[in-house]
Amino acid sequence: MKLIKNAAGRLVPKEVNGQKQIPFQGVNKHIPKGNKISAPIRSCVNYPWDGNKLVKNLKEALIKAGLKNGMTISTHHHLRNGDELTNLLFDTIKKMGVKNIRWFPSASFPVHSHLIKYLEDGTIHHIEGSMNGPLGRFASEGKMKGVGVLRSHGGRYSAVQDGEVNIDIAVIASPTADPFGNANGVTGKSACGLLGFALADSEYAGNVIVVTDNLVPFPCVPWQIQGNNVDYVVQVNSLGDSSKIVSGTTQVTKSPDRLLIAEYVAQFVDEAGIMKDGFSLQAGAGGTNLAFLLYLKERMKKRNVKARFMRGGSTKYLVETLEEGLTDYILDGQTFDLEGVRSMRENPNHVNTSPFTSYNFHGKGNFASMVDVAVLGATEVDVNFNANVVSHSDGYLLHGIGGWQNCLYSKCTILAIPSFRDRIPVIIDEVTTLCGPGELIDVIITERGIAINPKRKDLIKAVKKSNLPIKSITQLKDEVYEICGGAPAKPKVDKNKVIAIIKWVDGTVIDSVFKIK
Amino acid sequence: MKLIKNAAGRLVPKEVNGQKQIPFQGVNKHIPKGNKISAPIRSCVNYPWDGNKLVKNLKEALIKAGLKNGMTISTHHHLRNGDELTNLLFDTIKKMGVKNIRWFPSASFPVHSHLIKYLEDGTIHHIEGSMNGPLGRFASEGKMKGVGVLRSHGGRYSAVQDGEVNIDIAVIASPTADPFGNANGVTGKSACGLLGFALADSEYAGNVIVVTDNLVPFPCVPWQIQGNNVDYVVQVNSLGDSSKIVSGTTQVTKSPDRLLIAEYVAQFVDEAGIMKDGFSLQAGAGGTNLAFLLYLKERMKKRNVKARFMRGGSTKYLVETLEEGLTDYILDGQTFDLEGVRSMRENPNHVNTSPFTSYNFHGKGNFASMVDVAVLGATEVDVNFNANVVSHSDGYLLHGIGGWQNCLYSKCTILAIPSFRDRIPVIIDEVTTLCGPGELIDVIITERGIAINPKRKDLIKAVKKSNLPIKSITQLKDEVYEICGGAPAKPKVDKNKVIAIIKWVDGTVIDSVFKIK
Repeated sequence: MKLIKNAAGRLVPKEVNGQKQIPFQGVNKHIPKGNKISAPIRSCVNYPWDGNKLVKNLKEALIKAGLKNGMTISTHHHLRNGDELTNLLFDTIKKMGVKNIRWFPSASFPVHSHLIKYLEDGTIHHIEGSMNGPLGRFASEGKMKGVGVLRSHGGRYSAVQDGEVNIDIAVIASPTADPFGNANGVTGKSACGLLGFALADSEYAGNVIVVTDNLVPFPCVPWQIQGNNVDYVVQVNSLGDSSKIVSGTTQVTKSPDRLLIAEYVAQFVDEAGIMKDGFSLQAGAGGTNLAFLLYLKERMKKRNVKARFMRGGSTKYLVETLEEGLTDYILDGQTFDLEGVRSMRENPNHVNTSPFTSYNFHGKGNFASMVDVAVLGATEVDVNFNANVVSHSDGYLLHGIGGWQNCLYSKCTILAIPSFRDRIPVIIDEVTTLCGPGELIDVIITERGIAINPKRKDLIKAVKKSNLPIKSITQLKDEVYEICGGAPAKPKVDKNKVIAIIKWVDGTVIDSVFKIK
Repeated sequence: MKLIKNAAGRLVPKEVNGQKQIPFQGVNKHIPKGNKISAPIRSCVNYPWDGNKLVKNLKEALIKAGLKNGMTISTHHHLRNGDELTNLLFDTIKKMGVKNIRWFPSASFPVHSHLIKYLEDGTIHHIEGSMNGPLGRFASEGKMKGVGVLRSHGGRYSAVQDGEVNIDIAVIASPTADPFGNANGVTGKSACGLLGFALADSEYAGNVIVVTDNLVPFPCVPWQIQGNNVDYVVQVNSLGDSSKIVSGTTQVTKSPDRLLIAEYVAQFVDEAGIMKDGFSLQAGAGGTNLAFLLYLKERMKKRNVKARFMRGGSTKYLVETLEEGLTDYILDGQTFDLEGVRSMRENPNHVNTSPFTSYNFHGKGNFASMVDVAVLGATEVDVNFNANVVSHSDGYLLHGIGGWQNCLYSKCTILAIPSFRDRIPVIIDEVTTLCGPGELIDVIITERGIAINPKRKDLIKAVKKSNLPIKSITQLKDEVYEICGGAPAKPKVDKNKVIAIIKWVDGTVIDSVFKIK
């Protein structure tokens, strides 16, 4: 595989899985030319007049959809680690004797380690999508036949819209659906909130199969997925384990260090002047971020400040914020707990969003760049403010990108991270994998200090008089190295063997992930 | 203009305004080949990061959108006869000295007679869209430079989606909008309900301009039009006359004849076995249809029957039906009064639909064919059950098609019409203009009898034992001719001069409208 140096100085392949790639050109440098994919014109004559698109089972739907070797099949991670449908899907494909599938999930989870045998036996050729845990490890060991392609949520939408990825068959797990294919995630025993990650697939895939364990008579309202885009509907007994669909990610951290980070972030957002009437924020659903939200709410109440909107990853904490009147709206991209699902179902100000509205970089603007402050995590940050979210310093690909890259476009991007984990520095000289260019990352907040990107003179000035522990990023790194006994060991990788590439939001290749030796 | 005979035996041109046309091939015979239009890929780099797309005024928006001679500009009829924006738009275009615009409205109203001077002076080349009243009369007199093209709501969506009509600039009147371009019709002083007729335009037009008289901070929720599809936002003092936006169409008829028709329709729907638990219906917002709804509700209450959904044109009568629990849902395509607007704003079971969900014939099915019974009007019906909605027997083009053609696909299509108007027969030997093929029209209900299409043996059998005045269509026609003194006079038209064509739902040409001599 021939590698070239991109504008970030990282080695990336010119071609992956037979598809030409554009190396990263710099932030906002690559403007796509050309037109969106143009889907075939359909006719109602070829669909049932009574709207009943039910077929016997998944196998029949796949046969009708023309499944064959080498096709691209998409699934979505709304059911998270409770998803049993994707495993059933590939069991079915295996039984049908079909090979070399390009699996195009919006993300994969540990539950999908079931699919490793299909990666081994050639049923699945490779995965294009985030790989959390075991599948990432499998790929890192060089065992996947093709090269993984990791995209942000917005990048995935663009790739489909732009025709970079042609989905042959989309399989959409739908907690509620009607026989016409209208579907939503807010009701049913497998309720997961929204189905936004399947939007692009429903719009552009050659064939769209909706699978549900809660079939209702037409119309299924709301129709988060529109039946007018759907070819077949399949009824199953169960989509998965509902206790894991809305899983236990929504715990506030109890770690004193993390609580301190959260408190610093809230103080920073307040004292930098961001927290003012009508402001907006995005925070993830991790323990530190939830603690940050609670601290911020105290400050908002004290100062009588109301936000215009908060973006999430919704949790019961975000829902409380809405219900207490501290924000006009939740613009929700993913629902993490049952309170989030309930609120989205009941409260019209808890709004269902999608990668199209929020993150698509190849649209007429998106929501991410309108957000006043985004509080995110990272596995590593380097002294140039570059950050990594997919691998650790051992080089293993273990995490997905999610909407992380897209959120970097907020007006103030804060990475709230511990300075080290398991005695391995998180603030380092150079990131193992580059996911986010430093010029888009404004503030690093750790338990032992805060570093502001020198580019953000406005922020530096704004908090000058605060008692926040502002330091330079190098100072932070030096302190951490001293605690941990120096830089982390370099990962032992084979620089000739790329196992996955990381796409930037504009579809260019920002970095490569290499095989572990 | 060379005319050929289509499959319905009507003379239609092979080419119109320089565009090749496909003659009507018969119901469900024409299956389109090819792909949808593929819009240019955009980049967020070219849009304001803060989401603020406001420009100074309409002229500036048009300049930025690259307005030039011969372009296609679309508007929408959500503001109905209260629309002042479209007139302002063409005043602006006139002042800019731009000529030969193809105006592509979803419909036009008497208020738009203001534009006749621009049709005369060449600012507007021709109108593609329904022409209600004065503009239709103007066209009928052969005064329009180009040939009018009339499409159903669904046909308009398909034409845009399929690339038959490339919209250069869409101008969307938006009763509420934010600076990003998210917009809705449920709030604001010009509230009109929904904005579904602009959906295709927002998705596919080269440039999209949202114009509002109620600008709110981002996010405007609900976003019936998505800001991610919008280029420019313009703020104006007023979009129009709100008393005419939700105009007085929602009056129940007081005419004894029309009330009798309405009663017959309700009795027919009941006794034919259509009115049963979980059934669905669509009825227009005209006086007879409203009376029908009231009669039907009495029967539903008496028999304890609940509908699954009712489609409309929503009015206070439909809203009451929902609120009384007689239907689970209203699937609304157009909101005709303030009660409809309120209900859509407040009640999640009053659902906003669009020509895409309801009527697009070039999709994977649509709602229209799932409806158990549709009650519609017509200007003429002939002995072969063919019907006309755009002209009267004098040949003048005076009415739009609306969703009428699309609704013919319901499981039982009833035309509820007087047998004559102003002593001119409505039931005749051959329609002046063919809009709907007889094979899709099941029942004609007049004040002097009911004719069932002989193809519908099931319906004939179902009402055999009822006391309904069932007659043959010829018998009905003969009776009417006797009352009115024979067939209506033939229109005096120039058969060499086509002033407009009528498209069928599949984009083929079903009939021509000729110049009045």
